[in-house]
Order: sequence, then C-alpha cells, then structure tokens
Amino acid sequence: MMLVNGENYRTVWMQDTSVFMIEQNLLPFRFEIVECKDYEQTCVAIKTMVVRGAGALGAAAGFAMAQAFLQNKPSEFVDAARRTIEATRPTARNLFYAVERVYRAGLTSPQAAADEAQAVADNDAADSQAIGRYGNELIKNGFRILTHCNAGWLAFVDYGTALSPIYQAHEQGKNVFVWVDETRPRSQGARLTAWELNNAKIPHRIIADNAAAWLMAQGKVDMVITGADRIAANGDTANKIGTLGKALAAHTFGIPFYIAAPLSTFDRNCKTGIEITIENRNQDEVLFQEGPDAQGVVHRICVASPGSGALNPAFDITPARFITGIITEKGIIKPDAAAIAELLL
Amino acid sequence: MMLVNGENYRTVWMQDTSVFMIEQNLLPFRFEIVECKDYEQTCVAIKTMVVRGAGALGAAAGFAMAQAFLQNKPSEFVDAARRTIEATRPTARNLFYAVERVYRAGLTSPQAAADEAQAVADNDAADSQAIGRYGNELIKNGFRILTHCNAGWLAFVDYGTALSPIYQAHEQGKNVFVWVDETRPRSQGARLTAWELNNAKIPHRIIADNAAAWLMAQGKVDMVITGADRIAANGDTANKIGTLGKALAAHTFGIPFYIAAPLSTFDRNCKTGIEITIENRNQDEVLFQEGPDAQGVVHRICVASPGSGALNPAFDITPARFITGIITEKGIIKPDAAAIAELLL
Repeated sequence: MMLVNGENYRTVWMQDTSVFMIEQNLLPFRFEIVECKDYEQTCVAIKTMVVRGAGALGAAAGFAMAQAFLQNKPSEFVDAARRTIEATRPTARNLFYAVERVYRAGLTSPQAAADEAQAVADNDAADSQAIGRYGNELIKNGFRILTHCNAGWLAFVDYGTALSPIYQAHEQGKNVFVWVDETRPRSQGARLTAWELNNAKIPHRIIADNAAAWLMAQGKVDMVITGADRIAANGDTANKIGTLGKALAAHTFGIPFYIAAPLSTFDRNCKTGIEITIENRNQDEVLFQEGPDAQGVVHRICVASPGSGALNPAFDITPARFITGIITEKGIIKPDAAAIAELLL
Repeated sequence: MMLVNGENYRTVWMQDTSVFMIEQNLLPFRFEIVECKDYEQTCVAIKTMVVRGAGALGAAAGFAMAQAFLQNKPSEFVDAARRTIEATRPTARNLFYAVERVYRAGLTSPQAAADEAQAVADNDAADSQAIGRYGNELIKNGFRILTHCNAGWLAFVDYGTALSPIYQAHEQGKNVFVWVDETRPRSQGARLTAWELNNAKIPHRIIADNAAAWLMAQGKVDMVITGADRIAANGDTANKIGTLGKALAAHTFGIPFYIAAPLSTFDRNCKTGIEITIENRNQDEVLFQEGPDAQGVVHRICVASPGSGALNPAFDITPARFITGIITEKGIIKPDAAAIAELLL
C-alpha cells in the first residue's frame, strides 16, 4: 500500500457500507479523504473526478454497485442504481466490467456483491503489483527513468502501472531517479506523479516537457516508462499527448521506451492506431492555469496572449515501431500483432 | 514596420535625445511605451528586460551610447557610460558590437554617434527583412508552419527572424497558418509570438509543446521555422529548450526544419554543438506561473507539487543533421561546415 505522509493508503476502499476516496481534485496542494455513505454519493464522486484513472474508476464503480445491494431494497432499485453508476463516466471500460461483475454476484446476496467489489479492487492492485514485478527486472541500480503524465497508484487502486516498477525497484533498495515530465496542459506529471514520488521518498525532478529530448541527448535518461490509454492489436499505443514526442527522442538516442499497462488496456477490435479517435479538449486548459498563491489562495490565471485560441488534443498515438516493449501483469511482450494475440488468448 | 492595434512600431527607437521602447515585461496583457531620457535610464530598461532579444538589445545599447555623447560631457563621462552600458547584459554579442560602432563614430561628433546608432538599428531591420525575403521563397500558399519560442520582431528591431518569412508571405497575400508552441517554461510562444501574430492578423493556434509531434504525425505541419541563439561552425544549433524535440519529430515525419538567424548568430570559434554551454535557469520558472485573473489582477501561482524540485535547462542543441537549412540575410545555406565557412568569408 502506498505512502502519504508516512501512512498507507489505497486510492479508493470500502469499509462497512461506506466508500472512501482520496479527493484527487485537491492534490497536490491538499490531502483529504472523502466518505461516500451510499451509492448516490459514490456516483457524484466519480462524476466530479474525486477519483480518476481506469483502475480506480473500476474499483469505485464496483463498490458503488455493492452499496446499492447492501441497502436491501427491491431489485428495481438495484437496476436503477446500475444505470446511474454506468452513466457517470461513459468511456472507462473498467467501470462497466466492474459493475457487471458485482451485479452478477449481488444476485446471490448483498454480501456476495461486497465481496466481489473487494475482489475487483484487489485484482486491480494485484495486476499493478505484477506489472511492477516484471518491470522491475528491467531496472538496473542507478537508473534514471523518465515518465510522462501520471500512471501511478492514484490512477489505479494501488501501485499503478508506469510507476509500479519504480516503486518495487526502490523498495528493493535500488537507487532509482525519476525525471517527471510536467505534462502540459493539465500537468499531471508535475502535480500527481511528483506528489506520489515525494511521498514515497523517491528522488526525482520535474522538467518542462521541452527538456526531455535534451536530457536524452546528453545521456541522462536510461529508460522511459509511460502508461497507456488504449493499445491497438498491432501495438500502436494511445496515451497522454506528448508521449509520441518522447518516444521519437528515445528512439533517436537509443533509449529503451516501455509502455506499462494491464491487459484491460488492449483493444483487439482496434487493428492499428489509425482507428483510435483522439479527443480535442477545451482550449482553456492551454490558455489558463490554476493553482494557489503564496498564501494558499487558489487563482485561475491567463498564461497566453488573450486574443489567441489554442488547439488541445488530449492524446497521441505512438506507432509500435518506437516502443521497445509492453509491460503487462502477464509479462513483458514485444509490441507486435503476434505477441499481443498470444497474450490475449 | 510591425503592427500593434493597427499602428506601426519598432521594438526600440530614438527621437531627439530620448530612447523609446515597448515595455515587453507587460506583454501580452498590456501594451505600453517606455521613454528613457538619458543613457542611465536606457541602461535600467535594458537591465530590467523592458527590451530583450539579440537584435533589439544591440539597437538599444547603440542608442544608449549615442545618448551619452549627446549629453556633451567630457570624454571621461562617455567612457564611464560605455562601461555602464556594457555591464547591463553581459552575454549578448550584438550589444558589444553596437556599442563599439557607436563609440568610434562618436569620437568625431555627437551627431555622428546618433547617426551610427540609427544605422545599427536600420541594419538589424534590413537583415531581418532580407531573412524574410529568402525564407518566404520556401513558403507555399496554404502552408501550416510550426514555430517555437519567439523569434519575431519583438526580439529584434523589426520583422524578426523565424517570423519574418511568415510576415512577408502574409503581406504577399499567401494563406499561411501558424502553430505556436507554448514554449514552457517561460511561454514566449503563447505570450509573445501569439501576440505578434494576433496583431498582424495572421491565423494561428497555440498548442502545448507536447502536441507538436502529434500534429506532425497527422500531416498537419508543412514546415518548421525557429530562431537560434548560437550556431556552431558545423551547423549544430543552440536554441530555446524544446527545439531539439521538434526537430527530431520533423525529421521522423519528413517535414522541413529551418533555422532563421542573422550572420551575427554564427560562432566560428565553436566547432560543434558540444562546445556550447547550456545555462540551467531557476527552477521556479517551471514550478510557478504568473498571469492576470479575470479581473486583470496578476498572481503568481504554484503549478507543481510543492515538495518537488525542477531542472530547468534554458536551451538545447539540435545536431546539424536534423536541420534542413539555415535562412540568413545572405541566403539559405545547408547546415554544414563548408557552407558556413563560405558564408562567413
């Protein structure tokens, strides 16, 4: 379990009939736990992004489904709850998978639903841990690892994906150092990954995204690990905008570039990256920034010329040929169609 | 001359015995002209970065030297003034060159100093215009050009370098569109380049630096043009951090990548890029951002996890093999030792 101010936490957990979550909207400036006393409150928390990231969303949705069963109401109530939970965040595949599992178990008894929701969360944590175990084998003592965005434990239930190998290497006493891409425009690297590493006491430095290629050119990066949002059947990988640029730089300078992701991230219906649709998000994410001043008062400031607009693609696609390997809970594979087909058998 | 709210301006100019400058510290949120009534005031303006950029600094320093002569004081006064001017910004080569030229002319008469200072500024503008003329020949109608940082007229006296070809193409009625890299950490792209293009009514969009490679991969960039801080004798080019990453992406996707710079940017004493020292600037540039809120009140906010430090290299070096050509006031050359030696003859 991951450390915050020296205490162990998961991103989301259930105790009796309440679901607890780390309020991720307040990170990295404030650390608070939110208690959701019924499934409705858990749905609001999911919708307002108190919790985010595929694995953590799946666990939260599973717990919400269990909460609905535990209220011991007629089956119409449970079915309506299921629809409400599924409507919170329509794109996260883990969410639907978790709700389905818990719903089926709950037809036996409310306790079975609660047990199944716990199993969903535990499975996610176990998968992350397995990814960490395999990834750790790639990390030599003294490695300087560059990562992009946040694929740490905050996006899952525990351990995370890209950061999980780093946590395990650190726990085993290896010296590891992490270059943290700021990851504009939403700065998940500077805000969340740096916060995680700071709590785990793993040495790291934040860099402007612009600095990554230059550090690689100077031989100051031994390895790159990032997460993934979706992996096509041929290994092309959609991930946070900027991943592609880092992969190209790593390729140029002969630095291993790994993707870390659970099997649930692979989409066998997607033959190549071309088929993946990339969302353009609101331009204000580029033009404005939010954060606290020296007194802790949060302001939203303009960081661009007021007359100009922005284009804000949220993800990019890294062709498989620029990826050294994909670290999964079943082992490390080459990013090609044959290896992926075998993995998903 | 460049447009601001429909009126023509240079970044710095002299009228009678006063030097006028656009107060660049206030851009893009406020447009103000600063009047410096004597060389001391001009020195303060240079030091406090009211004016910045190699060409504009040279012109400002030349004007300051002329102001000292125009005060008709003994030669000790003029010599002391020269030392003060040279101490304002110790790294800009153009500054020393301009001071030397104006000082020599001033030994004849104060008016000769004023004329020479005007000639320095006019030369800079003419060089920028010539760069624009050559660069414009590369731009086809409908081109979408990506640029990094600000190498526009604000960094010179007029026209600029990387933006000069774009201004000329636009003036000739070509349809041009510009992708403006935000250019973290100091965001000169989002703040200054976007401001310039907005005033010139040239269509453009700001992008997070992370988005550049993805736009190139999709075929949405026809050409890249950036400025340069120093060019080695073999063509290796130091420029704002992030230039290297854009060059690597352009190379991967077969997109022409040009550097635009005057001859004064070439350093024949520097054989290759390895000899160029890269400055690491204060980490606070990465960790904090400054800008106005909706009411126009400027705040400095924290944009990273408070417990973490940052590394902030200000420039990077793009190896010559990733550069398609260098646009100078004498024409466009290949980035190799023979072509550069011939150019500098």
